Amino acid sequence: MAESAPTLLVVSAHAGDFVWRAAGAIAAATLRGERAVVVCLSYGERGESASQWLAGKSLDEIKAIRRAEAEAAASALGAEIEFLDGGDYPLVETPELLNKLVHVYRRVQPTVVLTHPLIDPYNGDHPAAARLAIEARILAQAIGYEAPGEVLGAPPVFFFEPHQPEQCDFKPNVLLDITAAFELKQKAMQCLPAQKHMWEYYTDLAVRRGVQVKRNAGPNLGLPVDTKGEAYMRYYPQVTDVLE
Amino acid sequence: MAESAPTLLVVSAHAGDFVWRAAGAIAAATLRGERAVVVCLSYGERGESASQWLAGKSLDEIKAIRRAEAEAAASALGAEIEFLDGGDYPLVETPELLNKLVHVYRRVQPTVVLTHPLIDPYNGDHPAAARLAIEARILAQAIGYEAPGEVLGAPPVFFFEPHQPEQCDFKPNVLLDITAAFELKQKAMQCLPAQKHMWEYYTDLAVRRGVQVKRNAGPNLGLPVDTKGEAYMRYYPQVTDVLE
Amino acid sequence: MAESAPTLLVVSAHAGDFVWRAAGAIAAATLRGERAVVVCLSYGERGESASQWLAGKSLDEIKAIRRAEAEAAASALGAEIEFLDGGDYPLVETPELLNKLVHVYRRVQPTVVLTHPLIDPYNGDHPAAARLAIEARILAQAIGYEAPGEVLGAPPVFFFEPHQPEQCDFKPNVLLDITAAFELKQKAMQCLPAQKHMWEYYTDLAVRRGVQVKRNAGPNLGLPVDTKGEAYMRYYPQVTDVLE
Amino acid sequence: MAESAPTLLVVSAHAGDFVWRAAGAIAAATLRGERAVVVCLSYGERGESASQWLAGKSLDEIKAIRRAEAEAAASALGAEIEFLDGGDYPLVETPELLNKLVHVYRRVQPTVVLTHPLIDPYNGDHPAAARLAIEARILAQAIGYEAPGEVLGAPPVFFFEPHQPEQCDFKPNVLLDITAAFELKQKAMQCLPAQKHMWEYYTDLAVRRGVQVKRNAGPNLGLPVDTKGEAYMRYYPQVTDVLE
Amino acid sequence: MAESAPTLLVVSAHAGDFVWRAAGAIAAATLRGERAVVVCLSYGERGESASQWLAGKSLDEIKAIRRAEAEAAASALGAEIEFLDGGDYPLVETPELLNKLVHVYRRVQPTVVLTHPLIDPYNGDHPAAARLAIEARILAQAIGYEAPGEVLGAPPVFFFEPHQPEQCDFKPNVLLDITAAFELKQKAMQCLPAQKHMWEYYTDLAVRRGVQVKRNAGPNLGLPVDTKGEAYMRYYPQVTDVLE
Amino acid sequence: MAESAPTLLVVSAHAGDFVWRAAGAIAAATLRGERAVVVCLSYGERGESASQWLAGKSLDEIKAIRRAEAEAAASALGAEIEFLDGGDYPLVETPELLNKLVHVYRRVQPTVVLTHPLIDPYNGDHPAAARLAIEARILAQAIGYEAPGEVLGAPPVFFFEPHQPEQCDFKPNVLLDITAAFELKQKAMQCLPAQKHMWEYYTDLAVRRGVQVKRNAGPNLGLPVDTKGEAYMRYYPQVTDVLE
Repeated sequence: MAESAPTLLVVSAHAGDFVWRAAGAIAAATLRGERAVVVCLSYGERGESASQWLAGKSLDEIKAIRRAEAEAAASALGAEIEFLDGGDYPLVETPELLNKLVHVYRRVQPTVVLTHPLIDPYNGDHPAAARLAIEARILAQAIGYEAPGEVLGAPPVFFFEPHQPEQCDFKPNVLLDITAAFELKQKAMQCLPAQKHMWEYYTDLAVRRGVQVKRNAGPNLGLPVDTKGEAYMRYYPQVTDVLE
Repeated sequence: MAESAPTLLVVSAHAGDFVWRAAGAIAAATLRGERAVVVCLSYGERGESASQWLAGKSLDEIKAIRRAEAEAAASALGAEIEFLDGGDYPLVETPELLNKLVHVYRRVQPTVVLTHPLIDPYNGDHPAAARLAIEARILAQAIGYEAPGEVLGAPPVFFFEPHQPEQCDFKPNVLLDITAAFELKQKAMQCLPAQKHMWEYYTDLAVRRGVQVKRNAGPNLGLPVDTKGEAYMRYYPQVTDVLE
Repeated sequence: MAESAPTLLVVSAHAGDFVWRAAGAIAAATLRGERAVVVCLSYGERGESASQWLAGKSLDEIKAIRRAEAEAAASALGAEIEFLDGGDYPLVETPELLNKLVHVYRRVQPTVVLTHPLIDPYNGDHPAAARLAIEARILAQAIGYEAPGEVLGAPPVFFFEPHQPEQCDFKPNVLLDITAAFELKQKAMQCLPAQKHMWEYYTDLAVRRGVQVKRNAGPNLGLPVDTKGEAYMRYYPQVTDVLE
Repeated sequence: MAESAPTLLVVSAHAGDFVWRAAGAIAAATLRGERAVVVCLSYGERGESASQWLAGKSLDEIKAIRRAEAEAAASALGAEIEFLDGGDYPLVETPELLNKLVHVYRRVQPTVVLTHPLIDPYNGDHPAAARLAIEARILAQAIGYEAPGEVLGAPPVFFFEPHQPEQCDFKPNVLLDITAAFELKQKAMQCLPAQKHMWEYYTDLAVRRGVQVKRNAGPNLGLPVDTKGEAYMRYYPQVTDVLE
Repeated sequence: MAESAPTLLVVSAHAGDFVWRAAGAIAAATLRGERAVVVCLSYGERGESASQWLAGKSLDEIKAIRRAEAEAAASALGAEIEFLDGGDYPLVETPELLNKLVHVYRRVQPTVVLTHPLIDPYNGDHPAAARLAIEARILAQAIGYEAPGEVLGAPPVFFFEPHQPEQCDFKPNVLLDITAAFELKQKAMQCLPAQKHMWEYYTDLAVRRGVQVKRNAGPNLGLPVDTKGEAYMRYYPQVTDVLE
Repeated sequence: MAESAPTLLVVSAHAGDFVWRAAGAIAAATLRGERAVVVCLSYGERGESASQWLAGKSLDEIKAIRRAEAEAAASALGAEIEFLDGGDYPLVETPELLNKLVHVYRRVQPTVVLTHPLIDPYNGDHPAAARLAIEARILAQAIGYEAPGEVLGAPPVFFFEPHQPEQCDFKPNVLLDITAAFELKQKAMQCLPAQKHMWEYYTDLAVRRGVQVKRNAGPNLGLPVDTKGEAYMRYYPQVTDVLE
């Protein structure tokens, strides 16, 4: 069995989550010429679209708006995107939604998976998405699970950063240098005009994580002053043949 | 400032610890042509030399025996070794011993550090060694600390596996493939003839960790049946520009 | 938008839970002239009514008994009470029950929420109630969630004390002085005659928590010898403009 | 009410789990003349039968094969076995399955319960089985829960060892000496011919846990060189009248 | 090497600690005809003798008072007692004090050890005593450590209950039935007349822990209504050949 | 005994720490007319003065520079400051330094204490300062500890935010609104010209913590858009008579 080509799968609870929290990793992958696929389990139509509700939009209109924004952001990052429309607030972990996600895994054959952390006291959909992403990955590995495509390998899973990391027991063990990818992340953020205040917020966060990249890499490594970073939490042990 | 050549520093509480727990990582480094330096804070003369005490040896004889064994094992691994003779059972964290270790860091300029985990309910010297290794690394980074040599960068620190991992809150987040290096590890273990029963024990452990290497790498990667592994716990976040 | 009047909402898995564990906080609120609303998700008809079952009562009789007792206790505390009759042993987290609870939040507009802790190895209904209380609070905050009433603010959530606190990872970070309210708590407890042995048990607990109130407040503060307390665990960070 | 005769209940997610992880405890019980009952919630037909799927067997054939193997293994251990056929990958925690398990508890009246740990990042069915085992035990204790048989007492619950213990937060607090029972465990393992590589793996594990048995019991106790062990995690506090 | 006769060693930071927290276990042992030895590392002369300081006593007088009280309490329990006079507030972990304690271990040859838990935010001496007790036990096991007497085995270590258990991460995993021993515990408490308010406090605690003994043992076991308990935390895994 | 006037004590490992991490809380206190006292255990002369060492300053010059900066910053905040000159890198926890700090507590009679968190993998001096602050507070409470001044009450202790909060297990449970105090914090930061890049960094952090203040306080409370915050971790339980 041949090793798969590097392919990134991002499982996002709502339409916008992957932009703020993982756009750097996505752009870094596509800049290396790798495939990246984003799956939005819902549009975030009820829980993360306050301004549209205030503007009196209907549910269908809101879903369309969020979808268009997310497609534009994915496009800016060079990533594919699909929507499972599982509903949000709450995102219910139905057998059907789980099964759809297993099919995605079998079809896409990701070599790396990104999703939300398993704990979030402010948002029940985020941990639900994480549980779905992890459970579907395990099911896709089983030859006895009926779904088209090859049985999945064991792609590593990384949790991206939540809004209040300390309250989510988010202790990053991977700091990703996204300096080269940051311009694309900015473009992707600008595809979400309703949350303009977030642009600056997540730029500041990239600076702060960049400071930590430099600190943990060591001051002698000559990283640029404007190094940008994203923080991740590896869920399974890293397998390697070099400690570094 | 130029990036340092890859150099491994292993801080070992007693003379034998680095063999059982880290010989695979050491041999993997030297097989890549890299430098590896082992520092034994003590000889393990009181706490880990029961058979010699039962045989009626004197303290000095025991220290000489343990030193010779450790030198032979290091030599088998292609590593340098030095002894700080800080005394064991208990290994006392004196300012002098800490200072000696800072000097080692400044001189050796390690790019990777291995040591014991910070918790061990069965052995107080192991956590003491870990605390010394971590504190000395921090001090060696400070330009204001007086010791010869360049200021240290920020080498990652990995904890190697203790004898009863679960009791030491040892949750490995790195599984190192030591298949190619395992022959050298076996030779190093054979340099410690008084603990012959440990040879098999740590061979079995390498098999078990190898099974986990294969499981976490994914069944499709074509790793050989006899893959061997060592488990490590990364203390600081990994810095990388690729999630994998 | 005006700040809401102080309103306490207590989400209780079974009919009696709020009395033993939170009656002090409830009475303290009503004594200050504030509104307090208790929601019982079930009557505890199967799991917490052993003496009635032994006496040969029917399910409906038991529910009526438990309801009357809880109403009397709430009345003694000056609190309102409602019953969602979700069934117990097990308390199943259905979408319908969750939705009912969201409606309560939107209607009551609590400024403080009390519920069970999230872990209880002795009782699965207690963590289920806590999950429902937390999830419903989040849903009630979303403008896109369809339910009558204003969108909810961000009321703090406190977990009250379980029967075996250490086994529930219950580490109190708030000690509430209930000295003035304790007389009402005693009256409320006396509304539950089938559990007479609990009266003394929870009086002793109030004394013990009162000792901790005094110890943590400092011996110089002049708190009375008979200070009584209840222990709580704050789930979200405290927001304040004074550290004290 | 008379104290029940010692009876062991093992709740296993899949047909083979009880063999690898708990056969020593089961055989130790039956060798003492006690009753042991294994309940398999599923056959592991989809998730743990890769070789049969590769051999082109049908679902029904695979279930029959797994059932026959498990019956043979139970028989070798002197234990009874029953199958709830709840389906695997995923094992869904339905009210029906939970209710069936409550009936088992009421009928069998176990004095000790063994099951999987509550965390397993590699297998969602194992924690699901543990949650079912714990919840059913609580329900069986309630006189108000309708099911035939006496109300259950408070049997202790022990988690048996998962495949990657450290990743499952498995910190053993009980080391069971299975030296005398080990021969039966080997016979039971040999009833599972499709997983021949596991025979050696779990023999090695028994040796390693046996080394820990000796170390924690103390070197002076005269335990034999070939002491074998199994590791367990006690979920509820031990009740005793002697500290030892 | 013969197995030692059952011998209990209690390592207490201050003169009174062993009475409130462990007198039940001590009396239970001596009532079984076993030897029990209490070692007080200090008299608690500065930190736990407020009433004597307020009464204007000198340091030497206070030490004499505390010593006499502790001797009377030990006598009431049928236990031996010795005092290492290491000083309190703070109790400093000197090499000399550690060495004295190793000598005690070698001389007494305990088969069970009781001490304080390792965490206490209210009292630095308690964790210091625990660290000394654990480290001395390890040193006494090493044949190379110079001290008279046989090398120590591996006696289990239990932490007794601190004053604010939840703040000390004290999660009891052993509930000791001290019903039969409770009368002696009361007599021992009465040997400490300056802390009369503690008599009732620790009687209430024994009742509460007794309720948990009954709950965890199971309602069917016929334990008496007035069961009394003490809570402990086992530090090393239990070694056993029966799960119960 | 009268209740003390509100007095804030800040225990800082190095001269600059209190500015970046706690200046908002200090200024908030002094703006309310309360007393605030900063104690710097060292000047940070070796570990946190890289630019001065690079500029070729002597140790004494560097200490003088750091002292002058810290005095200016304290003055800008309206706080008193004192220096114990205990030395840094490493900050050694000597009995003498501990005793000096007890004297400070007895003299200042703080009602609130701020210090570093107990864990910091990047800096050994910070946890050392925290241990000293906590231990000295306990000693100052004991009437038997010889030092001038009244016995201390039980002032709450708050840990301020470290540079990499998640790596320090820093999970804030108090979010302090420092909007009104922020102008003074900026002035204090400007007293540390060698670390100009930190001004922006800690301004950004204040914005981010301000966002969390608003989120946790609830969107309806009408907090201004430019709310600024500081995060703290309360070490002892909060004592209160109102849950809010």
